[in-house]
Amino acid sequence: MARALNLRIPGPTPVPPDILEAVAHPMVNHRGREFAALISRVADQLKDWFQTSNDVLILSASGTGGLESAVVSTLSPGDKVLSVSIGAFGERFAAIADTYGAEVIPLQYEWGQAARAEDVRQALAEHPDVKAVLVTHNETSTGVTNPLEEIARAVREASTSPSPAARERVGPGVRGEGTLILVDAVSSLGAIPFEADGWGLDVVVTGSQKGWMVPPGLAFVSMSERAWRAYEEAKMPRFYLDLGRHRDALAKGQTPWTPAMSIFFGLDAALERMAEEGAERIFTRHASMGRMVREGVKALGLELLCQDERYASDTVTAIKCPEGIEVSALRNALEDDYNVVLAGGQAKLQGKIFRIGHLGLVEEEDIRETLQALEQTLAKLGFKAAAVR
Amino acid sequence: MARALNLRIPGPTPVPPDILEAVAHPMVNHRGREFAALISRVADQLKDWFQTSNDVLILSASGTGGLESAVVSTLSPGDKVLSVSIGAFGERFAAIADTYGAEVIPLQYEWGQAARAEDVRQALAEHPDVKAVLVTHNETSTGVTNPLEEIARAVREASTSPSPAARERVGPGVRGEGTLILVDAVSSLGAIPFEADGWGLDVVVTGSQKGWMVPPGLAFVSMSERAWRAYEEAKMPRFYLDLGRHRDALAKGQTPWTPAMSIFFGLDAALERMAEEGAERIFTRHASMGRMVREGVKALGLELLCQDERYASDTVTAIKCPEGIEVSALRNALEDDYNVVLAGGQAKLQGKIFRIGHLGLVEEEDIRETLQALEQTLAKLGFKAAAVR
Repeated sequence: MARALNLRIPGPTPVPPDILEAVAHPMVNHRGREFAALISRVADQLKDWFQTSNDVLILSASGTGGLESAVVSTLSPGDKVLSVSIGAFGERFAAIADTYGAEVIPLQYEWGQAARAEDVRQALAEHPDVKAVLVTHNETSTGVTNPLEEIARAVREASTSPSPAARERVGPGVRGEGTLILVDAVSSLGAIPFEADGWGLDVVVTGSQKGWMVPPGLAFVSMSERAWRAYEEAKMPRFYLDLGRHRDALAKGQTPWTPAMSIFFGLDAALERMAEEGAERIFTRHASMGRMVREGVKALGLELLCQDERYASDTVTAIKCPEGIEVSALRNALEDDYNVVLAGGQAKLQGKIFRIGHLGLVEEEDIRETLQALEQTLAKLGFKAAAVR
Repeated sequence: MARALNLRIPGPTPVPPDILEAVAHPMVNHRGREFAALISRVADQLKDWFQTSNDVLILSASGTGGLESAVVSTLSPGDKVLSVSIGAFGERFAAIADTYGAEVIPLQYEWGQAARAEDVRQALAEHPDVKAVLVTHNETSTGVTNPLEEIARAVREASTSPSPAARERVGPGVRGEGTLILVDAVSSLGAIPFEADGWGLDVVVTGSQKGWMVPPGLAFVSMSERAWRAYEEAKMPRFYLDLGRHRDALAKGQTPWTPAMSIFFGLDAALERMAEEGAERIFTRHASMGRMVREGVKALGLELLCQDERYASDTVTAIKCPEGIEVSALRNALEDDYNVVLAGGQAKLQGKIFRIGHLGLVEEEDIRETLQALEQTLAKLGFKAAAVR
């Protein structure tokens, strides 16, 4: 079961052979004692990675399903939400809220840039009746990590002490409960530092196929007490993705609907492996891989989409495709000649960038191999670096 | 990787070792050529099992997610739907429609009975403005198979030639497009005869963990042309479970969101295995297993919940728990002493029945072992059959 490919896309990430073996576990009764022990064990361990004292719910869905569960479990049609968007996944989060009838106030940035806490503060001052802020921690489409802790602090401050002007406009009931912070942490959690409770986040969503080294199929979602109070009032329709049903089932060691059990078995093995390596070493490894990729591609004379090193993602790097080179030709040649698989650009970045995933199962050797293959393929395709090596 | 348990619940069903091995396939790019070939291949083969010329869409969700996709992709809030319900899963289908604002007209039967086509015909005559009929093919909670072909014929007839009274009440536009038939075929498809197009069904939903011998995590959904026309008008909010997005992605050999790839690999192997056995032999085997279970439990002096052999399910059998015996004690003893796992009752049947699953990977030996273990355990628990063996 050797890894066939150097799969350097930002998810699904390569799954180690021992975890794949766990995925092949025979079926058991999903309403029985063995599964109850399994789901309680993994849900407990996930709390450490989320850094939360709240339940982490496990949905049989992709990360997008997780984002939808966050929206429909806390909001009502007509609720005003501030969408802090720096790329394709920020736009997707907003599109979900819009689909279910939320009034979306867009705070958009050029793709490749990070959001600024100051802008969030200002937007909330202008819209004191915002019920929730939607924010992406790590934008997979652009390779940018938002300063989530700062953004969350801005929301909390605006939320607990609205400006006098806001009070006057909306009255004393302004944000009585505090604005909710809904976070897409799909391509960050488990790979880079994260604190759900410490940063005051209300709903946090991630997916199994990213930092966790597990196949896709599960979304993990935590809800703060404030989010659970919002759940009681929320009127968007919800059934399959209803987080309350997941909470009630988890208390019995179950899921409300038949779970994707194979992925649960894999997750159990993966969390054990991650505990052995330890959070500190995992975060350091990702930081080091991120630097290695960025320095490597710059040394090849290529340009990063994210030009501000402070916000450069340590899990995925987006690289501008040099003029005269076609992204598809580059990616196909890398796969055909070197067994290296990179990702293309999404939405308006399609054909303009390519992306290297470096999260989950990734070591220096994988990156070295990727950079070498990239250098040789670019040369074959006629690329001449302007910069001096 | 020997089967650890005689897992006789109506799903997840046991997965053969060669399919588990396929499930453990390493990750590939879900937007790449290998996955495109895989999804096209399995979606094509599923059409044969559904007996449809329409696309079969594959969602990363359980069967319940599939049912929700059927509702939200064809209906609008306020639409009138006739819910033909004979058990817990019929109620669930109705609850989904109700959650999204449909006006649900219940046609309910005592649990253990099948629905009658004549009642459906009458209900549609009374409600000529019904937009869709929700019907369960095989009710997993009671072990009853509805006469789906007859029910569908009643809907089609009422739909194409509404009664004069109906025309008068609602006008010439009555059911212009014909009433939609939405079918929960979760525990029937792939195990017993089924004809989506031949019977005039519009949306058909099933799940990977039943007849297909694949782990849970995927739902398969077909849509008729009539259903796709309804999709264009349907106003219930939908995102993750939006079937139109799945149709558009499938045309490119993709899914709209990251798919549960491991289950796709398993499905590919399972469909090959099923093609080798052939539909006729698979259906005959299930019919024979169903008879063997029913005759076996009756011979033990037990009573079936479904007393009408015409509607007895060939995939799951519900058995009344004899007086003086606790279902939980019976099930625990079977598991602890014989490694045989049976299912309990759901909702109002909890504590009153137990269920034997016999779909997917099931042979005479599995049933013989189950019946023997059941006989010995009942005896230990003090059960004395009233009937003569």
